[in-house]
Amino acid sequence: MILHIDNNTPEKILLEYTKSTNSFVNKKESFLQLVNSSNYKTVPENLTPFVIDKFIFKNDIQLASIDYKQHKSIKIKNINIGRKCVDFPIIMGPCSVENENQINEIANFLTKNNLKCIRAGAYKPRTSPYSFQGLENEGLKILKKISKKNNLITFSEAKDATHIQELISYADVVQVGTKSMYDQGILKALSKSNKPVLLKRGFSSTVQEFVQAAEFILSGGNENVILCERGIRTFEDKTRFTLDLCGVAWLKEHINLPIIIDPSHALGYSYGITDLSKAAVAMGIDGLLIEIHPDPSKALSDAEQQLNLANASRLLDAISPLIALEKRKLV
Amino acid sequence: MILHIDNNTPEKILLEYTKSTNSFVNKKESFLQLVNSSNYKTVPENLTPFVIDKFIFKNDIQLASIDYKQHKSIKIKNINIGRKCVDFPIIMGPCSVENENQINEIANFLTKNNLKCIRAGAYKPRTSPYSFQGLENEGLKILKKISKKNNLITFSEAKDATHIQELISYADVVQVGTKSMYDQGILKALSKSNKPVLLKRGFSSTVQEFVQAAEFILSGGNENVILCERGIRTFEDKTRFTLDLCGVAWLKEHINLPIIIDPSHALGYSYGITDLSKAAVAMGIDGLLIEIHPDPSKALSDAEQQLNLANASRLLDAISPLIALEKRKLV
Amino acid sequence: MILHIDNNTPEKILLEYTKSTNSFVNKKESFLQLVNSSNYKTVPENLTPFVIDKFIFKNDIQLASIDYKQHKSIKIKNINIGRKCVDFPIIMGPCSVENENQINEIANFLTKNNLKCIRAGAYKPRTSPYSFQGLENEGLKILKKISKKNNLITFSEAKDATHIQELISYADVVQVGTKSMYDQGILKALSKSNKPVLLKRGFSSTVQEFVQAAEFILSGGNENVILCERGIRTFEDKTRFTLDLCGVAWLKEHINLPIIIDPSHALGYSYGITDLSKAAVAMGIDGLLIEIHPDPSKALSDAEQQLNLANASRLLDAISPLIALEKRKLV
Amino acid sequence: MILHIDNNTPEKILLEYTKSTNSFVNKKESFLQLVNSSNYKTVPENLTPFVIDKFIFKNDIQLASIDYKQHKSIKIKNINIGRKCVDFPIIMGPCSVENENQINEIANFLTKNNLKCIRAGAYKPRTSPYSFQGLENEGLKILKKISKKNNLITFSEAKDATHIQELISYADVVQVGTKSMYDQGILKALSKSNKPVLLKRGFSSTVQEFVQAAEFILSGGNENVILCERGIRTFEDKTRFTLDLCGVAWLKEHINLPIIIDPSHALGYSYGITDLSKAAVAMGIDGLLIEIHPDPSKALSDAEQQLNLANASRLLDAISPLIALEKRKLV
Repeated sequence: MILHIDNNTPEKILLEYTKSTNSFVNKKESFLQLVNSSNYKTVPENLTPFVIDKFIFKNDIQLASIDYKQHKSIKIKNINIGRKCVDFPIIMGPCSVENENQINEIANFLTKNNLKCIRAGAYKPRTSPYSFQGLENEGLKILKKISKKNNLITFSEAKDATHIQELISYADVVQVGTKSMYDQGILKALSKSNKPVLLKRGFSSTVQEFVQAAEFILSGGNENVILCERGIRTFEDKTRFTLDLCGVAWLKEHINLPIIIDPSHALGYSYGITDLSKAAVAMGIDGLLIEIHPDPSKALSDAEQQLNLANASRLLDAISPLIALEKRKLV
Repeated sequence: MILHIDNNTPEKILLEYTKSTNSFVNKKESFLQLVNSSNYKTVPENLTPFVIDKFIFKNDIQLASIDYKQHKSIKIKNINIGRKCVDFPIIMGPCSVENENQINEIANFLTKNNLKCIRAGAYKPRTSPYSFQGLENEGLKILKKISKKNNLITFSEAKDATHIQELISYADVVQVGTKSMYDQGILKALSKSNKPVLLKRGFSSTVQEFVQAAEFILSGGNENVILCERGIRTFEDKTRFTLDLCGVAWLKEHINLPIIIDPSHALGYSYGITDLSKAAVAMGIDGLLIEIHPDPSKALSDAEQQLNLANASRLLDAISPLIALEKRKLV
Repeated sequence: MILHIDNNTPEKILLEYTKSTNSFVNKKESFLQLVNSSNYKTVPENLTPFVIDKFIFKNDIQLASIDYKQHKSIKIKNINIGRKCVDFPIIMGPCSVENENQINEIANFLTKNNLKCIRAGAYKPRTSPYSFQGLENEGLKILKKISKKNNLITFSEAKDATHIQELISYADVVQVGTKSMYDQGILKALSKSNKPVLLKRGFSSTVQEFVQAAEFILSGGNENVILCERGIRTFEDKTRFTLDLCGVAWLKEHINLPIIIDPSHALGYSYGITDLSKAAVAMGIDGLLIEIHPDPSKALSDAEQQLNLANASRLLDAISPLIALEKRKLV
Repeated sequence: MILHIDNNTPEKILLEYTKSTNSFVNKKESFLQLVNSSNYKTVPENLTPFVIDKFIFKNDIQLASIDYKQHKSIKIKNINIGRKCVDFPIIMGPCSVENENQINEIANFLTKNNLKCIRAGAYKPRTSPYSFQGLENEGLKILKKISKKNNLITFSEAKDATHIQELISYADVVQVGTKSMYDQGILKALSKSNKPVLLKRGFSSTVQEFVQAAEFILSGGNENVILCERGIRTFEDKTRFTLDLCGVAWLKEHINLPIIIDPSHALGYSYGITDLSKAAVAMGIDGLLIEIHPDPSKALSDAEQQLNLANASRLLDAISPLIALEKRKLV
């Protein structure tokens, strides 16, 4: 249950509930109050006089539900992301920050194409300890320096809770990766900040679990969550993962958060990225995340799925008329 | 290995090979000869003088491979289906033939919208013996009668080999359903005819196995195979299946056969069918298969996923500009 | 709903129902009557006086449910298979009948070890048309000839409905393969016979769907169905399939049919077959199906998973004490 | 590549490599040296004179491979776990520490049955923020207090990297849960300690990825890793997960680490836990992890899968003869 509480509610009462139940969340800005639905089926008596509005939910999807709020849009610097926004961000960049030159080339490409968002990983959650693990803090510094120079919005990923504060301070948007979707150390830290979050779906998480992970952030007080579908694990082995657009259709129908699609990790090969991007745009989602690299054959990670700059250009040309049809603007 | 044989090849030699090896296929029209690649790595000596061209394959994908032929298009009555064709068929109709009235209403809707293809099931491959199993032969007769009157192309499904000849004689295109993809009784019968086939992917078949099932038909001499992606089974339970557009990207890259998408069975709910159809069209596939029903709430099967006629109309409006962008024509 | 009908029920009434509803099944031996639960929630009036007992089911699992009958045992020649039976059959044999010598060697091995059941495939449901498809009728003849000589019970598989009558007449137990589990041409033909059936689980079928396939046979009047778990398709790629013993635990808890386990197809490699067989026996199932071959390296199909005779011997030694613990007798 | 270095190797050289490459690991006890196989295909020149033995691996499975070492056994207080050990630990306890009484009852049950290992969760990695999250530090204190009094070995789980040091100091064995298998904050912290680790397989991780996660711990210098199979996510929905004994067969064939099986989380229901435990023991694994609770119906988490004490007793009786057959001793 979610309560909208009258502004006259004494702060004292709210705090009392917070302490005693631990399931009560005090969001100072809006006096929005969350009551753990399994414990409280009715409004606590001493709050009843202050209640303006209340929402009762059937399940653990609450703040993200369209039953609660129709649409959420998220402002990041000068762009707005969400179902009703005109901006259609296409977030491009390499899998990993490898060196300053590489990030510079990417930044130039983005600037030339009037794109505003760059992605690059500094902490890489690799499957094997014997693979390249990322440049870590040094990588974040390179990314920040060049983004600042080019006035770009940076997206970068936390791989575990040990460096989440570092990500919060260096990146404009903190990406939670597919292998970290359940990491409550990361989710809790993000829920206590106002940092925009790009939450990737766990590759074996149901859409319900995906949204429940978002609820960890939302219920802590941070409303700036963007969902990102990036492919799920199935029996199919000719492609790296299976992009789940049925799941995206479900999210669009039931969830109020912005939805971004990452076709690069889903397919795992560069050949079909443009087709999948066209599909995603036509479907009415809110942005794209695409891996590009000045020279994919030399990439230290995910070499096969990154587009080179010529192909990235072609992708932009291919999706432009579809973005226009959706009455949106590429940023 | 595939051999193109000179027209002067004596029929006698061909027949001799057919009998002795059982792996040799005599396609009279084109003198195209297929040699089982595992048995023959080299051209049989007595055929060598007649060989015009030969193809060697790395795996069991042979006649469907773009290495063998770049594109195939299939002519069905007055429409052409394939990667390079202008026609974009949208095949609509109910899950099951229920009665003449129902099929009449659908036929009127299609005619009004200048659509040329109707689908409806007479033999229903149900999971439970205690569910409606279809009108069987009576259903086929209704479908044929009304299609004839309205000059429509009929698509209908065989559920097992016992009635495949009936389907071949009644339907314009025989659909092989997701549960019958491996049914070699069906595949063999179709391979011996020239009947166009809509082969649905087994819901747990890899794209490789999907194409191998097509090879059963192609290698028997029937080149008229259309592939249909209709969703695969995954762990996700909020949607009925998971539409695999990564798999479709792979098919487009490697396979020469036309590709159709069926979003209705993939999602299993009517709400997202339009969005998924838009995605499919934008991706550059060759047709759509959509379940519609005059009154879905009363449908005897698949009630939740069928669109009513008003929503079917809206779907057509929504995909039209995308079909125009692809320089294709809705039929 | 299932009705037990008094022996005095006039045959006339039963036949009348059969004709008019098509959902009514006349089992002459027991006068057990099945009424399609979705159509008949109440007993038809003219049958009411004859009703001895009735069962109402929550779902499509009816005749296989332990709510209907606690245990079923199936007599095949001189052995009994089922939860409460002493006999523990281990059905061994090659993937495919290749020639008479091969089947002879297997038969000698079985006889030497006092085993009574042989399995071998004549119709092979291969994924590719370019692989060995089995010796077909010739294979069945070889199998029958040698089994007769050695007094063995034969298990062999139908791959589609075109040759199901042939299987019914040649084999003692007709195996329905994993790719044919949904083949209603096969299921219906078997339901009309009294032939014992080994029904393999579709590799992507839920246990519910697996039992529903059995209901097609049972509701037609053939009670002799044995279920066989043989591995399901998952994301794991180091093993061919994933043996689903959780599913087997569910079957044991809810279903009255005998359960056999086939570890060979599940794992796909010979190295762990003995361990998995031990696990299966300890779990309390009712039999094993194991692929063995006189010389696996030369097998025309499934070479990697077949045990040679020395290893088959070791397997028998390894499971013997476990079968003794379960108070059963290897046959 | 792994190098065994002569004892005379100057510590100086080892440290130099550690610093400069970051991929070099100095394990003081054995002078075992790991060189990142992608960077070093040959022995670094200045180490060549000291090399006693070297191992070259085909893939990222190195220290866990039976090609490197045949078997590893792990000593925890007075028990030994591993393929060649006599001890067969059955680790029992509730899903969550709920209060002191509950843990006391469990400890009494274990002591009465001569069992030495207790499991209970203090930090619960729940899917929803609106579910019980565990007693956290207070829970660990209760667990430690009662285990000390009863001389029990404690197993408890870290849910993310923020409290991993707390777990290392409170628990005898740190469990890494299925949702944290990829958490490199946890894995790295554990790799730097000598704390025994029970690493659970990610429910959608292949066995290869599972072992690669173990390599993160092993390559950091901590050899005390126990693998735990606990079910993988598949399409089957009648059971919570699918216990993957084919995967376990693969692990037994290729990996030198001890293997424990957790049937409780796999099945998700109490009814089949005994059968699955019997299967696991018969298969020759090295221990069991079973959820038990004094009153499962009142459990704050995983109520359906926990055994009550009477059923836990029956389980012990049921597996005892199988453990005896394997010539092992229940501890």
